[in-house]
Amino acid sequence: MNMYNVDLDKCEANYQPLTPIQFLHRSADVFPERTAVIYRDRKYTWSEYSERCHKLARALIATGIGRGDTVSIMAANIPAMAEAAFGVPMSGAVLNCINIRLDAASVAFILKHSEAKVFFVDQQFASVAKAAIAQAGLEDVRVIDIADPLIQCPEMVGDIEYEDYIAAAPGDIAIVYPEDEWDAIALNYTSGTTGDPKGVVYHHRGAYLNALGQVINANFLGKVPVYLWTLPLFHCNGWCFAWAVAAIGGTNVCLRKAAAEDIFEAIAAHQVTHFCCAPTILDFMIAGKPDGWKNPAEPVKVLCAGASPPVATLKKSMAIGLDVVHVYGMTEQHGVATICEPQASWAELDPEQQIRQIGRQGVRSVVTDQMAVCSPDTYEEVPRDGSTIGEVMIRGNIAMKGYLKNPKATQAAFRNGWYHTGDLAVVHEDGYIEIKDRSKDLIISGGENISSIEVEDVLYAYPGVVGAAVVAVPDEKWGEVPCAVVELSPAHQAVVTEQDIIEHCRAHLAGFKTPKHVIFEPLIRTATGKLQKFKLRTHATDVVSSRGKPR
Amino acid sequence: MNMYNVDLDKCEANYQPLTPIQFLHRSADVFPERTAVIYRDRKYTWSEYSERCHKLARALIATGIGRGDTVSIMAANIPAMAEAAFGVPMSGAVLNCINIRLDAASVAFILKHSEAKVFFVDQQFASVAKAAIAQAGLEDVRVIDIADPLIQCPEMVGDIEYEDYIAAAPGDIAIVYPEDEWDAIALNYTSGTTGDPKGVVYHHRGAYLNALGQVINANFLGKVPVYLWTLPLFHCNGWCFAWAVAAIGGTNVCLRKAAAEDIFEAIAAHQVTHFCCAPTILDFMIAGKPDGWKNPAEPVKVLCAGASPPVATLKKSMAIGLDVVHVYGMTEQHGVATICEPQASWAELDPEQQIRQIGRQGVRSVVTDQMAVCSPDTYEEVPRDGSTIGEVMIRGNIAMKGYLKNPKATQAAFRNGWYHTGDLAVVHEDGYIEIKDRSKDLIISGGENISSIEVEDVLYAYPGVVGAAVVAVPDEKWGEVPCAVVELSPAHQAVVTEQDIIEHCRAHLAGFKTPKHVIFEPLIRTATGKLQKFKLRTHATDVVSSRGKPR
Repeated sequence: MNMYNVDLDKCEANYQPLTPIQFLHRSADVFPERTAVIYRDRKYTWSEYSERCHKLARALIATGIGRGDTVSIMAANIPAMAEAAFGVPMSGAVLNCINIRLDAASVAFILKHSEAKVFFVDQQFASVAKAAIAQAGLEDVRVIDIADPLIQCPEMVGDIEYEDYIAAAPGDIAIVYPEDEWDAIALNYTSGTTGDPKGVVYHHRGAYLNALGQVINANFLGKVPVYLWTLPLFHCNGWCFAWAVAAIGGTNVCLRKAAAEDIFEAIAAHQVTHFCCAPTILDFMIAGKPDGWKNPAEPVKVLCAGASPPVATLKKSMAIGLDVVHVYGMTEQHGVATICEPQASWAELDPEQQIRQIGRQGVRSVVTDQMAVCSPDTYEEVPRDGSTIGEVMIRGNIAMKGYLKNPKATQAAFRNGWYHTGDLAVVHEDGYIEIKDRSKDLIISGGENISSIEVEDVLYAYPGVVGAAVVAVPDEKWGEVPCAVVELSPAHQAVVTEQDIIEHCRAHLAGFKTPKHVIFEPLIRTATGKLQKFKLRTHATDVVSSRGKPR
Repeated sequence: MNMYNVDLDKCEANYQPLTPIQFLHRSADVFPERTAVIYRDRKYTWSEYSERCHKLARALIATGIGRGDTVSIMAANIPAMAEAAFGVPMSGAVLNCINIRLDAASVAFILKHSEAKVFFVDQQFASVAKAAIAQAGLEDVRVIDIADPLIQCPEMVGDIEYEDYIAAAPGDIAIVYPEDEWDAIALNYTSGTTGDPKGVVYHHRGAYLNALGQVINANFLGKVPVYLWTLPLFHCNGWCFAWAVAAIGGTNVCLRKAAAEDIFEAIAAHQVTHFCCAPTILDFMIAGKPDGWKNPAEPVKVLCAGASPPVATLKKSMAIGLDVVHVYGMTEQHGVATICEPQASWAELDPEQQIRQIGRQGVRSVVTDQMAVCSPDTYEEVPRDGSTIGEVMIRGNIAMKGYLKNPKATQAAFRNGWYHTGDLAVVHEDGYIEIKDRSKDLIISGGENISSIEVEDVLYAYPGVVGAAVVAVPDEKWGEVPCAVVELSPAHQAVVTEQDIIEHCRAHLAGFKTPKHVIFEPLIRTATGKLQKFKLRTHATDVVSSRGKPR
């Protein structure tokens, strides 16, 4: 008998469900007068923001919403979206943020699959939302429009505007807390490069832990952070940053559109200290730096994810006053699973090498229990040699509950006690991982593995290349060979030839890795900015086969 | 049926027990070459420190230690003590750090009550430990001596020295992880101002969460923290800082003795960034500042707890390069429950007012779910008026499991779903709490409540007062009246009179709060530096009654 398990049970005083809702309460109590949300000419203190979240929760409860219901929202990074992060969970419902770039058919699928009971629609997306509701045949969904003076020719999809809806909330309804920290808090659909989108279910425990983890990852201390919402809040709940900002009582700067001009303006106007983004945003900023831009006294800390930022992008980011840390994750892990922790010893490296270190996916975050790069067959870890490729696997408390109404996919993702990312990586001598490919995007040529990312990195270094994707096309001799799809800047389109590209690659890569075909054309991306390589592969195969023999 | 609870169960991939052991693994993986522990001429990297903790765990397992066993240690803040923080839990056992200032009888009680199987003894405390083992009649306890060249005339209590013990650990034993995050990790006996000490049981969940909370409370980010061990590791596991330093990969600077000289030397030698302490340590430092001391470029961040630091102490601390933040807690809450979060608006106050704000106990820590100051009868919260006194109550995930083998005390502490601190406080308009007394130390004079702390604060402001305690003594007219016990600096002993003190108090306090008696004598404290007011009360009553009528 273990005496430490006798008469030492959990009770209300020593065990409460972990939930980010507590962060909102605390910041409202401790920093009531501090600015919580800024959007154009609107400003809410933590006290006001909390009150608005509570009103939203009470309005939803009055609408009949409760535990296990889904509340969907399709909105840009505006205050209503930041309020939904707390207001919806505090009604007991699960928050479903829908990607604003999706088409009506995809939105219709999500509304139906998630069984949405209430749908908040930013008027910017009124027409898509209206079409989606019609396509889904949802007569019962309660639609609430979110108005914004910025929207020209606004259209009403529902019968009430957001401000009126929350203003009408009864004052005497108690908000709802999770009964268990394993209760769902959010539902985020993956963009689904193949098949229907999958609904990833987040839990209060993971949201709480990842929020604390992000405070540490983002280095959110020292002074009150001012967090700029460049990263969409619909993307893994803004990687949990609405909750992380609340954990530390920082300021949310809302942004309808992550355009370079707006970002620079916000940084200067609000003394922004942090933001998150994909490398594309950095590229936009580098290209769109305003005349006379003065770097802030202290660099703005940026967590960058979505793809490995190219070396050139990292370099130029520093020059415009950004301190970029690369993180890596996926919807299934509350957004961020690894961070490329900077090491003091890197200061001794030459700048080029330094940048290479920074560009890797790195090590597990403080709240990610375990990560391994393994053979997907034997689960044996790959050696730390920087060249042997394995699949990235993760285990811990910021993994999703699973996929909604999809036990088969959940079991497959979690088989053998690991979450299988489907990403292929090497492990360097220092234990840092570097993603080499999605497992399904790996090119196998004459039995040799070719990482499309490695080839793409070389392509990006060529003057005038603004986009590059490398896919496998069938080859009689080698089985598969790499084919490069290259997007050139307008100034270079008449200048750069297929031969230039191939010669450049040959100079920097092993022969078998050098693309055998080059196609010049703009790259088509999904609503979340991802390349759909399976589509590109089919297209490239068609183009190449119509051309005849490779050069 | 709630669809979010269907086919979305916990599994190994998405649910792991929260435990600080993961922080050790991560820092060893991510920062293998970074310095983890410094003690005099010894230095261990995170890789070495982790290896030593693992050796300790394996040695214990080989000794037959496992889940539910207790391993005790009586040691100063030396490396073995920092290693025990991980090594003991990794054997499955519960870590019991014993206060090094206790007498043999108290240590004997703890060894018996905790059913200690192994006892690590720093040779500095060999004689007390030996006597305690004899008194407890423990023939079976395995004793391991910890040697240190600093100890003169060392004595062996057991049959093996620590370094030999861990060196002999078999290499092929797997360490033990908690089966559940509710499993016990540590056992800390309260000093017990009345009756036998109570054994407070900590859990892996609370240790993990409080470590993350402390990273945030201590503002542990920005650069790699160098944490100086002034606070005893036996005190609430150093308020969980051994685990917090691991969470962020900082450096532990060990210190056998928290003497001013050693503290200043360590700050200068190792560029210390943080430490924790009681106000007494600050007083020592202020008095013992070495000649030619140069403040560090950035102030050292100090979390100060144990008692409210007097205003004069706070002021003088700033002048010697310390940035003091006041925190408040107790053994039953993993050490720290509140923090006096600095507010930007305080900059507008005059320095005296600023210091008064800083000296309060403040607001709940980010990982403390709920705190309330309530009537202990009705549980109604007191108004935010800065004057109505209530009892501080806490609820959340950093509360202990309970008291070992003491269900009655556990139930009493946790009655009605709150942990009852026994501390009396007011709530200011800004929601910050300020402790006015222990419930049992409150003085009730003519029906009016008098906070002994308020009177002590006034006493400390009088020139030459180096210690002050105010207790109730019986009074025919008023029931109780305040009596001041005052310790004067040697230079002031012949100068200050009882009348001086009383007049000073009358000038700064309401008449009923002014002490009616003053006793000049040194203050006697417990092993943890606490005043034993119940003893002082008896003593003061004796002195006063022997004097006759009050003045």
